[in-house]
Amino acid sequence: MAVYTDVSAEELTAFLARYEIGELLSYKGIAEGVENSNYLVHTSRGAYILTLYEKRVDSDDLPFFLGLMEHLAAQGLNCPQPVKDRNGEALGLVAGRPAAIVTFLDGMWIRRPSVWHCAALGEALAKLHLSGLDFPMRRANALSVQGWRPLYQRAEGRGDSLRPGLCGKIGEELARLEADWPSGLPQGVIHADLFPDNVFFLGNRLSGIIDFYFACTDTLAYDVAVCLNAWCFESDHSFNVTKGRALLQGYAKVRALSAAEQAALPILSRGAALRFLLTRLVDWLNVPPGALVKPKDPLEYYRKLRFHQSVGDVGAYGLAA
Amino acid sequence: MAVYTDVSAEELTAFLARYEIGELLSYKGIAEGVENSNYLVHTSRGAYILTLYEKRVDSDDLPFFLGLMEHLAAQGLNCPQPVKDRNGEALGLVAGRPAAIVTFLDGMWIRRPSVWHCAALGEALAKLHLSGLDFPMRRANALSVQGWRPLYQRAEGRGDSLRPGLCGKIGEELARLEADWPSGLPQGVIHADLFPDNVFFLGNRLSGIIDFYFACTDTLAYDVAVCLNAWCFESDHSFNVTKGRALLQGYAKVRALSAAEQAALPILSRGAALRFLLTRLVDWLNVPPGALVKPKDPLEYYRKLRFHQSVGDVGAYGLAA
Repeated sequence: MAVYTDVSAEELTAFLARYEIGELLSYKGIAEGVENSNYLVHTSRGAYILTLYEKRVDSDDLPFFLGLMEHLAAQGLNCPQPVKDRNGEALGLVAGRPAAIVTFLDGMWIRRPSVWHCAALGEALAKLHLSGLDFPMRRANALSVQGWRPLYQRAEGRGDSLRPGLCGKIGEELARLEADWPSGLPQGVIHADLFPDNVFFLGNRLSGIIDFYFACTDTLAYDVAVCLNAWCFESDHSFNVTKGRALLQGYAKVRALSAAEQAALPILSRGAALRFLLTRLVDWLNVPPGALVKPKDPLEYYRKLRFHQSVGDVGAYGLAA
Repeated sequence: MAVYTDVSAEELTAFLARYEIGELLSYKGIAEGVENSNYLVHTSRGAYILTLYEKRVDSDDLPFFLGLMEHLAAQGLNCPQPVKDRNGEALGLVAGRPAAIVTFLDGMWIRRPSVWHCAALGEALAKLHLSGLDFPMRRANALSVQGWRPLYQRAEGRGDSLRPGLCGKIGEELARLEADWPSGLPQGVIHADLFPDNVFFLGNRLSGIIDFYFACTDTLAYDVAVCLNAWCFESDHSFNVTKGRALLQGYAKVRALSAAEQAALPILSRGAALRFLLTRLVDWLNVPPGALVKPKDPLEYYRKLRFHQSVGDVGAYGLAA
């Protein structure tokens, strides 16, 4: 839940006067996204999302994010489309923050995805990867393997308060992943945070993908590994291989995973689990007093990591190895 | 900011099937109201607000609140109108909570009300009071003078942590108000919480009043006193007599304040200040760990109380005494 920066009606009216999107009728801060402030805006022309980029987002990255959404929308992907003002600018300033207006997407995110949802997600992820191939901008993944040791160092010594021995286990895994992290796999634009709350469904179709603020240029199969973690575990922490198979087969309908990518899936999945374990752990250990966002449970991802450590090959995820 | 209870798409779809308001297209938790969970719902017919009533609201009071909104809307007041399901019921159950769908009101609340806004608010408040006169249901004001001592006792001994001597000052004021609280003034339905965030403006008109969940049957002029507190002080804590005059004259255009009501305004304003001082103080001293709502500053209302203590007569609020 996230509305960090309040916006006055006068300020928003003045800002919207630069756009051709009609008269402002209402705006409500919404509990969506944890990094930025988001408002659902109604104008005489329809609904829009106003995002104010907060401190955790580097404003130098905003042209990449906005350019990517524009590129993907032009390729027919259902994602929010940045609205440009009369000068052709997609990025402005509201309440002292960089801000953008994007189109509103109908649809609901699914709290407990079914096998069918996992299949649709896999297909959409592959479409996103193909649509991004000719996107000309690049952005390094600050939260890939090179970024994990600095996170680990911020949690070291304190992480054991959550679970005795946790930091030692993370340290061992980190060393292993740093040594063995795959290179040379197909690269491109990845979403990097495609959790269920970033994917909308409407009736019997996937209606949209949102929140591109972790998107970057990285190993495509790593994005698949993030989704295996985020979509295919049950609430009792068990991996649902039927969902894994549906996700991977949905993906393969649009883009085939090479043998090398398939072989790398277990280690990529370990890396994805470690990435969310580390960021959640750092957030958990650094909740500011009066925080408006509840930190997510880091140990959920420790359990997922241990599952992936037990995996021999891609067969454990539901693909014929 | 308030979304205490999450609702799944499946659950909401099933709930909305009881209504004739079209197909569900999206729903977003919104940062509005602090007592309940609110969602802005888009359907193929338009926008609605779904409210889930949380523990702080007594479900026995819900028929009063919903009946009142329906009554006021029928009288032409712009307020949310409860939507009834096919069985004529306005109250249902979502995610284990009592829940209602109400119509969506366009408009924005004003962070820094001007003299003009105060005049419009005064007029709307008087219209609300007149419209409520023939509302047949009654609800006692649990947060009037009889309710203040129990609140005081919850804060006693700890309130001085905010400001040395605070509890003693509150105790003195409480004893004075208990002894001198006026009776026999005109009664009726009051909103009792008509702060700027509960009043919407659109262009050059007041477009709506929301959040009737403190509404009750009480002294009408006490509602005026609540508004003097909530609308007419500047951010430097000074009382703006021009705004006070505008509010009172706006009110008088629709409903005249009797001489007795005018004479009682200073003590009613002290009571209103004490009421918000006490509830804020109790909230401040009882912030649960991991709270998602930031408590409001109690001392803002201590400063307002001290202003009202200095007031001789209604002339200090801008009316010719």
